[in-house]
Amino acid sequence: MPSWMVSRSSICGVSTEIESRIASLGIELPTPPVPQGSYVPVVRAGDMLFCSGVLPILQGELVNPGIVGSGVTLEQAQEAARVCVANLLANIKAELGTLNRVERFVRLGGFVAAAADFTSHPEVVNAASNLLAEIFGEAGRHARAAVGVASLPRNSCIEIEAVVAVKP
Amino acid sequence: MPSWMVSRSSICGVSTEIESRIASLGIELPTPPVPQGSYVPVVRAGDMLFCSGVLPILQGELVNPGIVGSGVTLEQAQEAARVCVANLLANIKAELGTLNRVERFVRLGGFVAAAADFTSHPEVVNAASNLLAEIFGEAGRHARAAVGVASLPRNSCIEIEAVVAVKP
Amino acid sequence: MPSWMVSRSSICGVSTEIESRIASLGIELPTPPVPQGSYVPVVRAGDMLFCSGVLPILQGELVNPGIVGSGVTLEQAQEAARVCVANLLANIKAELGTLNRVERFVRLGGFVAAAADFTSHPEVVNAASNLLAEIFGEAGRHARAAVGVASLPRNSCIEIEAVVAVKP
Repeated sequence: MPSWMVSRSSICGVSTEIESRIASLGIELPTPPVPQGSYVPVVRAGDMLFCSGVLPILQGELVNPGIVGSGVTLEQAQEAARVCVANLLANIKAELGTLNRVERFVRLGGFVAAAADFTSHPEVVNAASNLLAEIFGEAGRHARAAVGVASLPRNSCIEIEAVVAVKP
Repeated sequence: MPSWMVSRSSICGVSTEIESRIASLGIELPTPPVPQGSYVPVVRAGDMLFCSGVLPILQGELVNPGIVGSGVTLEQAQEAARVCVANLLANIKAELGTLNRVERFVRLGGFVAAAADFTSHPEVVNAASNLLAEIFGEAGRHARAAVGVASLPRNSCIEIEAVVAVKP
Repeated sequence: MPSWMVSRSSICGVSTEIESRIASLGIELPTPPVPQGSYVPVVRAGDMLFCSGVLPILQGELVNPGIVGSGVTLEQAQEAARVCVANLLANIKAELGTLNRVERFVRLGGFVAAAADFTSHPEVVNAASNLLAEIFGEAGRHARAAVGVASLPRNSCIEIEAVVAVKP
C-alpha cells in the first residue's frame, strides 16, 4: 500500500459526506496537478464537467513510469491508476468547491501505455473504477473505455479522463 | 458472411421499426455482453447515453483476436466491428427498453489494435458505421474518431464506444 | 512557417470577429476536408457539437505523415496539429455558418502517432491548443486528453477531435 493511502480507521462513522469518505479511505486529496500543456483541467458545459486527462503525478513525481506489460507490472499500473483518481478528484473539487456536488461519474477514458501483447487493461483501469465506486457509491459507477496506447506524456504508464454530471 | 448475419429476405416490408430492420438484416441482438471490468454498460445523462466500449464478443468468444495488419486481416477486423455494433445495440436496448427511442448516434469512438504501419483504420470502422446507417438511416450517421492503439483488453482487435441521443 | 500560414499585418484593428482574427493570424480556412469514412464531420446534440477526428490534410495532401519520434519530428508534428485545427474550424463553420457562434471549446482529443519512447505529446498537442486560444481567447481554452497511439488513418502523424459548445 503506497504511503499516500495509509490505512486508518474510519474517522466519521455515519457521515455520508464524500470528502469524509475519502479521508476514511486514507486518501489525501492533493493540490490539483499542474496541467502538462496549454489546456484547463476542467470545462463545465451545462450540467456536465469535461475533465482533462490526468497523469499519476504524486508530490511532483510521476508514479511508476513506463510501459505496462514491459517494465511496469499490473500492480504498479493499478497503483498509478489510483493516483490518477486522486488528481482527478482534486481537479473536480477545485472546479466545484466541494465533491458533494458530483451527481454522477458518467464516463471514464482509461489510456494504458501498454505492450502489444498486454491484455489486462480492464484490471488496470478497475483500480480507478473501484476506487470511484468506493467513494461515491452508485454515483461513482460509470461507462468506460479502456485501451492500450503506444506511449503517454512524460512516459506515464496511464492517463485517465472523465465526464461528470453535476447536481443542478 | 458470418453465421450470425445470415442473409434472408426482408420480413417486414414497409415497417420502419428499428428492431424489424435489424432482423431483416439478419442480425440477432445478443444478450448484452458481460462488462469486462468494474463499469456499467451505459450511463444516461440528460438525453444522452454514454455507452462503454464494447469488444467483439459473440456467444462468449472473442471474434478474430490479435493485431490488425499483423495477423488479423482487414476483413476479419470488419467482421469484428459488426459484432461490436450488435453488442452496443444490445446494451442500448437493455437501457432504453427499445431501440426505437434512439434519436441519433452522436459519436463513435473506434479503437483498432493496429500495427505501426497499418493505415486502413477508416475501412475497419466503416463496417460499424455502415451497419448503423443501414439500421437507423440518417439517425445512424455519426461523428467519429478512428485510431490505431497498441493493444486492447483480452487481445481484442477492436473496441467501440458511443454517445447516443435519446428521444425526449 | 508553412505557406498556408503566411504572416501578414492585422487586417481588422479592433474587430473581435473570430474570422477576422483567423485572417489576421494568416490562416486561410480550407474547404472542409472530405471525411475518410462513413461518418459525418459534425453532429449537433442540443447546444453541443461533437466533431469528428480530423487529419492534417492540406490541399488534398497529408502533412508530415509517419510516427512522431521515429521519422516525424516534434516541429513537424506541431505543424500538422495546426493544420488539423484549420480543418476542424472549417468543419465547424460548415455546420454553424459562422465561427462567431462558438461559445466554448469544451474538449480536445489529441491522438499522436507516437513511438513507445516518445514523451512530448503535450508539446505536440499544445500547437493546436495554443492556436485555439489565440483565435478564440478564453473560449478557446479547453479540457484535453493527449495520448500516443500506434498508428492513424492514412499514416497520419496526428488526429484531433473536439466537443464544442454553441451559443444558444
